[in-house]
Amino acid sequence: MKGEIISVGTELLLGQIVNTNASFISQRLAELGIDVYYTTTVGDNAARLREVFAQGWQRSDLIILTGGLGPTMDDLTRETVAEYLGLELVLDHGVLSTLQNYFASRGRTMTDNNKKQAYFPAGAQILPNPNGTAAGVFLVLEGKVVVMLPGPPFEMVPMFEREVVPRLEKRLSGQRELIKSRVLKLYGVGEAQLETMLQELLERQSNPTLATLAKENELHLRLTAKANLPQEAESLLAEMEEKIRSLVGRYVFAVDNETMEEAVGILLKERAKSISVAESCTGGLIGHRLTEVPGSSAYFRYGVVAYSNEAKEKLLKVDGELLHRFGAVSSQVARAMAVGVRELGKTSLGLAVTGIAGPGGGRLGKPVGLVYMALATPDGVYVEGHNLRGPRPIIKKRASQAALNLVRRYLLGYLSGEKEDNG
Amino acid sequence: MKGEIISVGTELLLGQIVNTNASFISQRLAELGIDVYYTTTVGDNAARLREVFAQGWQRSDLIILTGGLGPTMDDLTRETVAEYLGLELVLDHGVLSTLQNYFASRGRTMTDNNKKQAYFPAGAQILPNPNGTAAGVFLVLEGKVVVMLPGPPFEMVPMFEREVVPRLEKRLSGQRELIKSRVLKLYGVGEAQLETMLQELLERQSNPTLATLAKENELHLRLTAKANLPQEAESLLAEMEEKIRSLVGRYVFAVDNETMEEAVGILLKERAKSISVAESCTGGLIGHRLTEVPGSSAYFRYGVVAYSNEAKEKLLKVDGELLHRFGAVSSQVARAMAVGVRELGKTSLGLAVTGIAGPGGGRLGKPVGLVYMALATPDGVYVEGHNLRGPRPIIKKRASQAALNLVRRYLLGYLSGEKEDNG
Repeated sequence: MKGEIISVGTELLLGQIVNTNASFISQRLAELGIDVYYTTTVGDNAARLREVFAQGWQRSDLIILTGGLGPTMDDLTRETVAEYLGLELVLDHGVLSTLQNYFASRGRTMTDNNKKQAYFPAGAQILPNPNGTAAGVFLVLEGKVVVMLPGPPFEMVPMFEREVVPRLEKRLSGQRELIKSRVLKLYGVGEAQLETMLQELLERQSNPTLATLAKENELHLRLTAKANLPQEAESLLAEMEEKIRSLVGRYVFAVDNETMEEAVGILLKERAKSISVAESCTGGLIGHRLTEVPGSSAYFRYGVVAYSNEAKEKLLKVDGELLHRFGAVSSQVARAMAVGVRELGKTSLGLAVTGIAGPGGGRLGKPVGLVYMALATPDGVYVEGHNLRGPRPIIKKRASQAALNLVRRYLLGYLSGEKEDNG
Repeated sequence: MKGEIISVGTELLLGQIVNTNASFISQRLAELGIDVYYTTTVGDNAARLREVFAQGWQRSDLIILTGGLGPTMDDLTRETVAEYLGLELVLDHGVLSTLQNYFASRGRTMTDNNKKQAYFPAGAQILPNPNGTAAGVFLVLEGKVVVMLPGPPFEMVPMFEREVVPRLEKRLSGQRELIKSRVLKLYGVGEAQLETMLQELLERQSNPTLATLAKENELHLRLTAKANLPQEAESLLAEMEEKIRSLVGRYVFAVDNETMEEAVGILLKERAKSISVAESCTGGLIGHRLTEVPGSSAYFRYGVVAYSNEAKEKLLKVDGELLHRFGAVSSQVARAMAVGVRELGKTSLGLAVTGIAGPGGGRLGKPVGLVYMALATPDGVYVEGHNLRGPRPIIKKRASQAALNLVRRYLLGYLSGEKEDNG
């Protein structure tokens, strides 16, 4: 079954609201095994809505429209679709009396235009709306399905779940294939490099399919499996995840909704390690991210935002000589900050970041985006330099991600052999 | 000029991400006075992308595509559009060397598929991307404009603002009625309360129109003016802004894209004040927010994340007796932390926050969401208690917003009379 979504509403075309309805319905249809090839947004305009609907009617088996079911003159969905399909609009007395009760119970007058919400295309199933006055429509004609739903998400979503899903499932029963997906989150590898490393899998693979998506801070690899049964889909995903991990496992830091800070938190807890953080250019972001995780007080002790040289000397005992000789943004100072905060917090680990977030402050040899980070551990200190790109907030985000990933790599034993001398 | 937006990406059709690009571009085009009649989403599929693009080419003067400019096999936008328009893809040596430098500076290998991002339709203007590897395209052909932008919003938005808007404005100069809007951001007042205070304005006003929108952390009041000339629209907006400020000005902390941390930063700079911050439940978020602002090192000195009692005693010199008697989440400890961090940093102001972010840690008399904040100043210490609602990340955000607003109110003199004794 090929599905198509048409979102109706001038407010969408003006960008006044984000179209979360389309993504919600897309996701639910994917889970039901219905392919969505197009979604279109069109304004409250009969001619253009007709054109878009006609196109959907030609190419799809299921058309879901949202919006345009209200009582006002610019609500045109019912009228336009019925006219295109050659169906009459018929008054439904049940809905009319529901509307009358609704207004009576609120002590409000029901105006004439409200009556229009009681008219439906002949032969349609009416979908009740417990959260508003716009009832929905489920219409089967010439083997195709047309669904009309109200625009407000708090009306649309419950109606979709309660009224539309069961009807679609019934039509699909027997022939239905479902889609399940899983996202592996990677860090420390580029999109093209990943594709090269996974080339064979990517070329051979049709179920699950694989798709990469570059995010600000990480790379997502989405596995999408089709199967008749949920368990079947799950085992296809598990098998593929194992293959991928055998090739690029060291870059995979989390699955699905898990974040880097959660992954690091789990590792710290498992290994009973504690951590303190000294931040310069990230300004508190690493502490903020670590403390987004419930229960982080079990391993996160101290955070110091040492934005000035004075703070680095006074709180972190960074040697003034180092600051003078190498500058605040240097591997030497990063190392001293990490050692200093580890001692201050008396924690297993001390993490430090110093860099130039921009837009000002860059100079020859020390450009904006240059960030040093260091991790002081019982086995010595690991130091890294990064050249990060982007505006200030992105550099801060990327620096925090690289720093958390340094902790992750240490805890997983990936850093052995990379250690610098501790003195 | 009739505009049309085509969003390319199978992840959109699967509902894995919400299409914020389409709403952003729609809104900006509306502000430029360009009508958008359709937006379409299509997957990473050459045939269907071609079909959708062909349709756009028939009916619109401006087609903006987002997504599908990456280095991988399923990134097809450049290729599909060039092929439809009969344009060759030509290697751009400038972009190629930018890409090569990008990979070299990261010590990463540039694989062959990355090269594909250096090919552009013949005759196209290339739009640089400071935040990623996918350059954009601005193409004028047969009096129509085709724009191709990368999919990730953090790459798309700056490219749109810097490269696309000026080019469109140039083409539009002299035309049609335009829409300009301005957002006043308020804190410390509820939506219904605001509506009551502005009732008369809201009822009488048609140009500019007024609309309120409740955000997580603040209230937005959007003024939208229509006019033939930019200056005309600007003066309508300015006049209305003045009327609003005369009624509810003390709640207005920023305009348009300005954030609370920027507003606070500007005030600190103007008044030549410096600040240090001691955070418990916000975990570094306040420092992070203050340092999102370029040049914040001029006023932000020290940040301390004192997640443990030990850190509060050791770094901030909070009396152990206070912690014992009143608990870490108390007005007394908030006050002592503020005084302590002000002394530590030798700054004009010391800001402190302590609270229970949840989901655990709440108890009788001290529920999740209870947050105390204090501001130590040369004139004494101001202390506030808040009961905040929401899951952990929201409580952290709201606490940071209330704390920054405390600084704002102090700097604007709104706190006089509210001061607590300093002892």
